[in-house]
Amino acid sequence: MHRTKVRVAADVLDANDTIARANRADFDEACVRVVNLMSAPGAGKTSLLERVLADGLLRAPGDGDHSTRTPGDADERPGAMADERPGAIRVGVLEGDVQGSLDAERIAALHVPVTQLNTARGFGGECHLDANMVRSALPALALGEMDLLVIENVGNLVCPAEFRVGEDARAMIASVTEGEDKPLKYPLMFRACELVVVNKLDLLAHVDFSVEDFLANLDRVNPGVAHMLVSARTGEGVGAFAEWLAGVARREPLPA
Amino acid sequence: MHRTKVRVAADVLDANDTIARANRADFDEACVRVVNLMSAPGAGKTSLLERVLADGLLRAPGDGDHSTRTPGDADERPGAMADERPGAIRVGVLEGDVQGSLDAERIAALHVPVTQLNTARGFGGECHLDANMVRSALPALALGEMDLLVIENVGNLVCPAEFRVGEDARAMIASVTEGEDKPLKYPLMFRACELVVVNKLDLLAHVDFSVEDFLANLDRVNPGVAHMLVSARTGEGVGAFAEWLAGVARREPLPA
Repeated sequence: MHRTKVRVAADVLDANDTIARANRADFDEACVRVVNLMSAPGAGKTSLLERVLADGLLRAPGDGDHSTRTPGDADERPGAMADERPGAIRVGVLEGDVQGSLDAERIAALHVPVTQLNTARGFGGECHLDANMVRSALPALALGEMDLLVIENVGNLVCPAEFRVGEDARAMIASVTEGEDKPLKYPLMFRACELVVVNKLDLLAHVDFSVEDFLANLDRVNPGVAHMLVSARTGEGVGAFAEWLAGVARREPLPA
Repeated sequence: MHRTKVRVAADVLDANDTIARANRADFDEACVRVVNLMSAPGAGKTSLLERVLADGLLRAPGDGDHSTRTPGDADERPGAMADERPGAIRVGVLEGDVQGSLDAERIAALHVPVTQLNTARGFGGECHLDANMVRSALPALALGEMDLLVIENVGNLVCPAEFRVGEDARAMIASVTEGEDKPLKYPLMFRACELVVVNKLDLLAHVDFSVEDFLANLDRVNPGVAHMLVSARTGEGVGAFAEWLAGVARREPLPA
């Protein structure tokens, strides 16, 4: 019984990876880089995105330059590539939520193209995005108008880490209010990312959280992974996260 | 395809409910009441339990009264029932975690009998406890020595709400740091409980969280559900939560 279960699991993950590769090929074709953003509920994914978009390094496709692009034409149009306009990377957002569109509305208020993906209907798919769900959203995404797509996953420290969706890089946000033990309790999530953002730095004085202990725990499960300390509330460190996203959009090698 | 998926889901949940009823029958036979405690990662389930156990209303089986009980003998032994010793309810803890035993060690340090249940091995079962996992832990639980078993579920606001494990009551903990929108984003979790505990009240002055808005959102998804405001850090309101647990142990009707 247990063996059957494990084999089914392997099949499901294999099928997911196949679809994730198809998504990735479509994103590549459109010259769009993709970041999968993950965290526990309430760690501040949307708030951090709001701050990043206010920061100015990333911007809505309609701001300033109204040129649009279609899949495949990026290489032929000078000035259209993100790495030639480092101050104006065009960003879109795909919002994954169990239900509702509260976060999508917050992002849309910043005039950023946002597509809502609700997971409430399917069993087993409710607590995370998978490659097939993202694939179903592709027709709704104006890929030709963006350099970077940020996929905001469902708030969950377990299952999202198991499902690639076709992204170039994965970032996860941990909050100082969650405690410094989280890398040890949810190791797969902390291993399955190229960047760990420690958010809510403004609350550090008010909680029992040792940054040093957290980083030591992180080092035990994912040695050398890049990390940064930020506060989406005060804006501290948010520029560094915007730079990291811009680096992904420009296809720069990810910093260790 | 979609229809098949839904039917499988219904079968899985039916099978889970059957096992949950068997667990419940075993708990009833042992005169043990059971609370399923759920929350997002880092909301403070373990910290709150630590505070409750320090509070004194609930206690470890070994403190003061060393009598033990075996299944079925509770009704015959005067003085052994929780409702006749309201100040000394014997509590045990079942710790659900993806991996590790950090929380179990914290509870064990308070001399409370604790059993660790790790979910890392099974696919689909990783992000929550189900009835079968709890059933597998029953032989390790000294049910005869406790009046109340608190099952600390995996930190997750989605799937734990779908799986009954044989509990008498479900409580969920929301933290003020998670934002007041959470009842709308994770409605099933906020509906699937008899009590909502709002924790980290000590941080209220430092975060953008309106208790009033949170309670209005909660009322939209679960009208009239009992709630309380606590701080596991300062101890504020923890006595009320201990009283609620004691009420479950004493089989009192749950307050609306």
